[in-house]
Amino acid sequence: MPLTILFAAPSLWDEYRDHLPAALREAGLEANVVLDADPARVDYVIYAPSAPLQDFTPFTRTKAVLSLWAGVERIVGNETLTQPLCRMVDPGLTEGMVEWVVGHSLRHHLGMDRHIVNPDHIWDPTCPPLARERPVTILGLGALGAAAAQALTALNFPVTGWSRTPKQIGGLRCHSGQDGLQAALTGAHIVITLLPRTPETENILNATSLGWLGRGAVILNPGRGALIDDKALLAALNTGQVGHATLDVFRTEPLPPDHPFWSHPKVTVTPHIAADTRAVTAARVVAENIRRSETGAPLLHLVDRARGY
Amino acid sequence: MPLTILFAAPSLWDEYRDHLPAALREAGLEANVVLDADPARVDYVIYAPSAPLQDFTPFTRTKAVLSLWAGVERIVGNETLTQPLCRMVDPGLTEGMVEWVVGHSLRHHLGMDRHIVNPDHIWDPTCPPLARERPVTILGLGALGAAAAQALTALNFPVTGWSRTPKQIGGLRCHSGQDGLQAALTGAHIVITLLPRTPETENILNATSLGWLGRGAVILNPGRGALIDDKALLAALNTGQVGHATLDVFRTEPLPPDHPFWSHPKVTVTPHIAADTRAVTAARVVAENIRRSETGAPLLHLVDRARGY
Repeated sequence: MPLTILFAAPSLWDEYRDHLPAALREAGLEANVVLDADPARVDYVIYAPSAPLQDFTPFTRTKAVLSLWAGVERIVGNETLTQPLCRMVDPGLTEGMVEWVVGHSLRHHLGMDRHIVNPDHIWDPTCPPLARERPVTILGLGALGAAAAQALTALNFPVTGWSRTPKQIGGLRCHSGQDGLQAALTGAHIVITLLPRTPETENILNATSLGWLGRGAVILNPGRGALIDDKALLAALNTGQVGHATLDVFRTEPLPPDHPFWSHPKVTVTPHIAADTRAVTAARVVAENIRRSETGAPLLHLVDRARGY
Repeated sequence: MPLTILFAAPSLWDEYRDHLPAALREAGLEANVVLDADPARVDYVIYAPSAPLQDFTPFTRTKAVLSLWAGVERIVGNETLTQPLCRMVDPGLTEGMVEWVVGHSLRHHLGMDRHIVNPDHIWDPTCPPLARERPVTILGLGALGAAAAQALTALNFPVTGWSRTPKQIGGLRCHSGQDGLQAALTGAHIVITLLPRTPETENILNATSLGWLGRGAVILNPGRGALIDDKALLAALNTGQVGHATLDVFRTEPLPPDHPFWSHPKVTVTPHIAADTRAVTAARVVAENIRRSETGAPLLHLVDRARGY
């Protein structure tokens, strides 16, 4: 009998309606993907944390809930969700994230903004330093942080990484834990926040930690809005301790029209585009996880509720 | 007896005065680096093509002229210069060029400008395509073009290369010769010009060849100003055939205040900063070539006058 797969992310259906059946067929699965079904008959739920479905109690035979989002903080505390929950680790999402991180790192490294906006037509042939002279620190060494670190290292940036638990990644100076944070941030010229949002990471960039950076450092936040204390960041921008912040994620999105980030001359707002799940690659990840579940193999990217991601 | 090395690039002396003696010592050479000398006693000339020295006739014992610039078109036609002429292939210059090329490629790929300048605070979360969907063509596969191609390939851009004579570079679709130019440019979204200036490459981007590009393509020129027919480029920008041009080099530099590139909304001017010779690395290249000459080994980066570079 074919599997019943509930696609509980209605706003994404247009993107997935072709890719998902194709990916399931490629994985050798016989399945009906439906937008509505009797919960008691659903084998798998494909899910976006923004979707209306919030009560998982009636999904008594559901073997797994497969998120189309990388971030699951909206759903990880849902006590009705007792089924295995997998987050999305989409190779397309990682690629897009690396492109955003490397692009904005090079933008600030090269001082592009003064050429893009140059109303007085100033010709100042001062060269920027080489990337090898520009220390970068990445907070978070998961799939996204590690991929960004690798791409920046390939361009000769000296990269320091920080993670909650100790990690070793080739070519990186790695620090970990609360004790390692100051060492990781001290003297950094570019700081990239790619941590999940957890109680431990909230406001990890605050008045104290921003003070550890090299003067005039640049912040890139493509991770989660809550990683940064907004008021402390604005204060550090105003004193010059932080030279610029390019922010892709915010505590409230879309960023409210009256938020000071919009008009601050040292802040660039990008509208949560650093990483988007791409249907063509994400559909394959979902199909592979269902294939694994059906053949008794361990699920990929299973969420650890104790850690929160 | 120590070698006499004439440093005939007076405006660069401040940058080199420390690095050059250090590099010569490291290379095991006993040498006096001087700013002035009897030409008949000079063993080597270290040279910038912008320098006052133009008559090489009296340098009768000089074994080589070592340019601190990558581009030698100002000097290659000088008939008094019969000594071996080496151009600079500086690893620091290559790194800087790769950073400029990758940075501006990602800037245009990601559509950064609309976030950097966003006076109406528009929140439009439309994602750019992935780099793997953005064809890039590089004209010129010398040291700089090949390094840029490699870095863009590592970021998943599908890169096509073109060179005057046939070349094979791993991971690249390569075309060559006048016949291969149309195939190399057809459908390109980003075109990067990294050719030397020769009679054959002048105006290689003209009304005809710009018409081969994908509509709205972006031009990046960190090579030589004369590679582009300025009027044809302005016309293509005005019709929308070319979406943007980011230019680092110009027929006249500094770019004259009345040049239309300054005020064109689809042109970004960068002030010849894409590649700069870095004294710390360039001094080592010069020292290595003198060491080779003194030990009878072939000179590196010897200019072929017939080719013009």
